Formats: sequence, structure tokens, C-alpha cells
Amino acid sequence: MGVVNKNFTKLNENYLFSEIAHRVRDFKAANPDAKVISLGIGDVTRPLCPEVIKALHSAVDEMACKETFHGYGPEQGYSFLIEKIIEHDYKSRGIKLQPSEVFISDGAKSDLGNISELFDNGNLVAVTDPVYPVYVDTNVMAGRAGELDENGCWNNIVYLPSTLKNDFVPEIPKECPDIIYLCYPNNPTGTTLSKEALKMWVDYALKNKAIILYDSAYEAFITENDVPHSIYEIKGAEKVAIEFRSFSKTAGFTGLRCGYTVVPKGVVASDSEGNEFQLNHLWNRRQCTKFNGTAYIVQRAAAAIYSQQGQKEIKETVSYYLNNAKILREGLSELGYQVYGGVNAPYIWLKTPEGFGSWEFFDAVLNKCHVVVTPGVGFGPSGEGYVRLTSFGTTEDCVEAIERFKKL
Amino acid sequence: MGVVNKNFTKLNENYLFSEIAHRVRDFKAANPDAKVISLGIGDVTRPLCPEVIKALHSAVDEMACKETFHGYGPEQGYSFLIEKIIEHDYKSRGIKLQPSEVFISDGAKSDLGNISELFDNGNLVAVTDPVYPVYVDTNVMAGRAGELDENGCWNNIVYLPSTLKNDFVPEIPKECPDIIYLCYPNNPTGTTLSKEALKMWVDYALKNKAIILYDSAYEAFITENDVPHSIYEIKGAEKVAIEFRSFSKTAGFTGLRCGYTVVPKGVVASDSEGNEFQLNHLWNRRQCTKFNGTAYIVQRAAAAIYSQQGQKEIKETVSYYLNNAKILREGLSELGYQVYGGVNAPYIWLKTPEGFGSWEFFDAVLNKCHVVVTPGVGFGPSGEGYVRLTSFGTTEDCVEAIERFKKL
Repeated sequence: MGVVNKNFTKLNENYLFSEIAHRVRDFKAANPDAKVISLGIGDVTRPLCPEVIKALHSAVDEMACKETFHGYGPEQGYSFLIEKIIEHDYKSRGIKLQPSEVFISDGAKSDLGNISELFDNGNLVAVTDPVYPVYVDTNVMAGRAGELDENGCWNNIVYLPSTLKNDFVPEIPKECPDIIYLCYPNNPTGTTLSKEALKMWVDYALKNKAIILYDSAYEAFITENDVPHSIYEIKGAEKVAIEFRSFSKTAGFTGLRCGYTVVPKGVVASDSEGNEFQLNHLWNRRQCTKFNGTAYIVQRAAAAIYSQQGQKEIKETVSYYLNNAKILREGLSELGYQVYGGVNAPYIWLKTPEGFGSWEFFDAVLNKCHVVVTPGVGFGPSGEGYVRLTSFGTTEDCVEAIERFKKL
Repeated sequence: MGVVNKNFTKLNENYLFSEIAHRVRDFKAANPDAKVISLGIGDVTRPLCPEVIKALHSAVDEMACKETFHGYGPEQGYSFLIEKIIEHDYKSRGIKLQPSEVFISDGAKSDLGNISELFDNGNLVAVTDPVYPVYVDTNVMAGRAGELDENGCWNNIVYLPSTLKNDFVPEIPKECPDIIYLCYPNNPTGTTLSKEALKMWVDYALKNKAIILYDSAYEAFITENDVPHSIYEIKGAEKVAIEFRSFSKTAGFTGLRCGYTVVPKGVVASDSEGNEFQLNHLWNRRQCTKFNGTAYIVQRAAAAIYSQQGQKEIKETVSYYLNNAKILREGLSELGYQVYGGVNAPYIWLKTPEGFGSWEFFDAVLNKCHVVVTPGVGFGPSGEGYVRLTSFGTTEDCVEAIERFKKL
């Protein structure tokens, strides 16, 4: 008789976005003339840049002739893309990587989910709180999370609060986690870690032989100097950290699907007898067995962003979103709100006014301003009392949203 | 301290294709003037058809304008493609499916690998032998396979020999497997199951509440009438079977990456307390958590094969490969070889002559004919004494290969 993985059955539906959609639908039904602005959207809206479009057309034409057709590619990705990534994203910052340490994939979400397979279920996992739900959910599915308690926390996950109280810098917990998920620039708070703060975590991992899973999907939005672009800027990180990157927000690839994961050969974990294994080798085995590479034409598109013109074009788009973030941040600040993020990230994290929970503020903003935001509590217990705004809409909508907030 | 999944460390490298490459390299070094023909290749070589190229260019242009740009799509795939699949591949054969029972992905290999996550590790798994290595390897990685014995078999996997002795129809084993992988038309043997033989397996699964994972990646190559195109042609299969399909061999998408998996809502498995769960629901949860959909442009390309012109074009390519298979099959037959498959599949399975093991025949064919085949033993113990030939090369090479076999 077929028996299910019981851990899958523990996972509730994620009601956050469906609940938002439900409330917005009700509002629109009651207010058919209202022009609703969404600042909740987590997807890009600007089109692919001309260099990427050109590369796609050219690669499609290659697929039309038997002489230039590409069938199965390497599971790890084509070297023409891997070499550009190493040269541009790492070597330029003094980080040395071998081509076999970079794995191209169909996106960071897949890799962040699948990486869990490499680890024993006995590992203690830590996540910052609030957090991107994928880290927690994939560990629930693996059976590493324990049971859900009355506060909405899994009793075998270590939550690292990142709030105003600690200036959004998570502290080393009293428990001793073996696997630590860090995402900087952060989703949802839009905040960053300084090199010093990140060094604290790398040193912890080095001392305790822990593994850091470092999600830097929003790296392209960094504008300030002291903010590390890669965890490998911190000495020793090449022995303890796996870094996840994505072209989704960097170059508008959310609908094209391409990302990459760096697994340095120095990163090892042990079995219960203390034998050490390179995670690079295990990840390679995972990808070769359960993945067949990313589309050739998509990898050509990703490579195109590394040309001089490609860099110019993707930076224009990132600047557009960062300008939106600035409009929201400064506008809300002037209105007296406490806002965080938005300088090195597309996200703005707003402290709700006294007496307003996340959902209450959501309702107030929807009903009075006709603006949709995302309740912070949807990202974890420490997100209560905050809402997230994103800068992925149009500049016109951001300007208009600030005008409407004045009425609140 | 980070601890690895010990099951990953059990898996040896798959040396089959690297050993072949090694022997071919040595041969070429010793015989620099020899023109080597590969009949070992498992990848398509014909370019994408014009309708697909047209659809790709058009979808790329959509991505260049903000009005028609597509960001994140549904994790389950776009309905424009799902509807075409249901209409063309299922409804036309009398099979009713709901759109939410079809999941678009980046290929059957990913889905066949990832599906393993839905099941408890206590399930007993059966595979036909010889077999596509992914089924076994993914179960080793999950911890469901036990230990490797001296014959190259995992002691907790049920092997179902499919050889000349049983006319390549695997028999119901004395053990009682909970999960059964079937692939028809078969890789590597190129043989098929009749409706009657497939019904035997569906009836077994219905009686024992087992789950059949049915890989029909080569369905487009079926030419004979009694061969089922889908397992859902068998009554009751919609309660026990998950079907995996791919555009890789159907339309030359090996480098474009698109496939789909059908999980009917009637397929359930239990937890240890006997509570039943829809696998459709669990698979949806898996895909929503660890996957972010297939590229929009690739889904548009897949949809293009369902137009009248698209069907005409992909059938021409499949016919080209099937004609190659016919040349090989008939040519080898005339030379006195026992050959199987190649009528409803791109693969031909050749019984090696008396006294030749798989590798010995491989060496003889390489050295005397300068032709590369794949040793059958690489696909499992019951593949010993066979080699696999594929029809994915050019017609000229197939004709020339037969001429050279005459010298053997």
C-alpha cells in the first residue's frame, strides 16, 4: 500500500496571498469605481531589456538549424554563462571561484527548496523572523521542523527575531543551529547586514561547523558601500556558506527562470561517524540525478546581461525600482511613519501606527487609500506590527499612493 | 554541526557514459583516421520545427513590452498549454482530465525525481530491469533502496526482469511493492506493453492500493494499434497512476526543457493511521513550494506543437527517427541478430551473440565497425547480454552503420 510522506500533510495552505486577494475582491465589489493601487506585488513589471531580447532571438534562431541546434546541455549549466558569472559577480570583488563551484538552475526558489535534500533530518535549522516562507515550508516537508505551536511557530525551528528592537540584526541564539538561512538584502524587511554583522554569523558557523544558506537574490539593489554583495567577501565563508543568486529581480527574469547557486568545494558536512563530505559533490549528484539543465536560450539571455550594454540596461531598470522605493520611503517618512529598507532593496518595511496590527493597518490602507500592502505577520510572528510595500509597480502609482496616504 | 543525508553518500558515480567516452577516446587516439558513428546517443539531433521557432520569437517579442510582458506564471503551468494537452493528448482518447490534474514542468526527469518526496521511506519500490537509472538513484537518495549487494542490486528494491525470457513483459513479483515504476514505450529496450499486460499492473495496484509511476516520455513513437498511449486508457488507472510526459523526444525539446505530469484527483495514498490523501494535493504543494513554473516562452513553444501545422511538423521529425530505427532493425535482423524494439520507440535492443557480454560486444563493434553502442548492463543486471542502439542520429549514419556491421 502506498504511504505518503506524513510531513507533507503537516503543512497548512499559505493563506496570506489568498486572504489578501479575498479582501481586495470584497473591497472592489463594494467600491466598483475605486482605482486600487497594489504595493503588495512581489513580481517585476518592467519588460526584459533589449540586449536580453536580442540574445533570445539569436539563440532561438540557433535552435532552428541542425548545425547550431542545442539538445541536452550540462546539468550544471553552460560554461559561457558560468565564466561570465565568476568574472563579473565574484572575481571583480576579489573572490576566487572555480567553474565547477557554480551551478546554473531554473531559479533560486528551486535551489533553496532542493538544497534541503543534502542534509540529515536531525539538523537543527534557524531562520530569521520574518522570513521568506520557502525556507520554513521546505524544512517542514523534510520532517525537520517538528510541530506547529499555538504562536504559529514550529517547535524544532530556531526563529531569529529581526525587528526594530535589534535594529533588524538577528542575534546568535542560545540554541546551536546546524543550518542557518540568511537572506540579505532581506525579504521582507528590505534591511541589510553590515560586513561586521555578517562576519559574526560566518565566525559562528566556522566555530560550530554549521552551514549558512545565503540567499542574495536582491544583491543588484545594493547601493551602500559597507553592504556585502556576496557572503564570500567575509573571510572563511568559503568553508561554511552556500550562496543563492537569481536573475529574477536583477534582470526581470521572473518569467524566464534562471538563477545560480555557488557551492565552494571547501564547504563540508559530516556523517554521524564524522566522515566529511563536500557539499559541492552532493549537490552535483542531486542536480545530475533530478535536473536536466536550464534551457539553452535562457542561459544565452542571462549571459547577455554581462555585456557592457546589458549591464547599462539592467541597471536602468533596477534604478527605476529604486527610485520608486525612494518615493515611498521619503513620502511615508515625511508623513511620520517609521520605515525601513528601500535603500538597498526593493522592499520597504513600515511599522504600523500604535494600536494597529498588520491586518488592521492593511484594512485601513485598503479602505481609506485604496492601496494594497502586505501584512508583515504573513512572513512570521515577528512581522506582526509591520507591513511590506514593494517598489515593483510604476512610478506614477507610487507618487499617487503617497498622495493617498496623506488622507489616512 | 551540519550533518549530511547519509543516503546521498551511498550513491556511486554512474560510470556508464564516462566509461564509454573513455573507451571511444582511446580508440580514436589509436585510430585517428577512423570515422566513428555514434548509435549510443540518447539526445535528439533534428532542430526545432518552424511552428515552434515562430512561437518562440513571438513570445520573446511579448517579453520586450511592458503591456505584454510575463513575470511569474502559475507554478502549475499556463492554462493555454494545459487545455491543449487535455484536448489533444487525452480527450481525443476518451480520457477525461480536469485542468488542475495536469502540471507543466521543466521536464520529466525533474518530476520523476521529485515525485519521490511525496512518499514515506517505508514504501517498497519496484522497477523493471533494465531501467532508466533515475528511478533507482532517486530512491537511493531518499533512503528507500537499502544497501547495494554484490550483483549491483539494492537489497530493498524489487527488480522486475524484462528480458527475452518473458518477452519483455515484467511479471507481478512475489514481494508486494507499494510503488511501481513503469516506462512504456521502454527505455532502454524499446519494447511496449499491450493493453492486457498493462491492465495486469493496474489491477494489481487497485487490489493492493499501490501507486504506479508511469513514464510515457516516448509515447509519440507509438505506431501499433494495441499499444496504449496513456495508462488512463486502462480502467481504474485514474485511481492508482501518475503519468509523466515530455516534449523532449516528441518535439525535440531536450534543450528547451518542458514536460508535464498528470496526477488525477482519484489517486490517493494513506498515512500510517489509514487516513487518505490526494497525491494531486501533495504534488501541488510540492510544486508551489519548490518550483516557480516553466518559462512563459517555453510554454508558448510547447503549445505551438498542438496546431495542425505543428502536429504535421513534429510528426515528420518523429517519422525521420522511426525510419532510422527501421533501417537499423531490418538491417541487423537480416544479418542474423536478434533485435527488439524500434517499432514504437526510438530504441533498439540487440541480443549480443553467443559468448559476448555487453561490454565485449561494445568493444567488438567499436574496434571492427567503428560504431558506438550502449552496453545494456549499464541499465541494470538484466541488461547484461544486450546493447542499446538509438535512432537519433542521421539516416546516412544508420545506413553506413549497417554496412559496417556486415564486416563483423
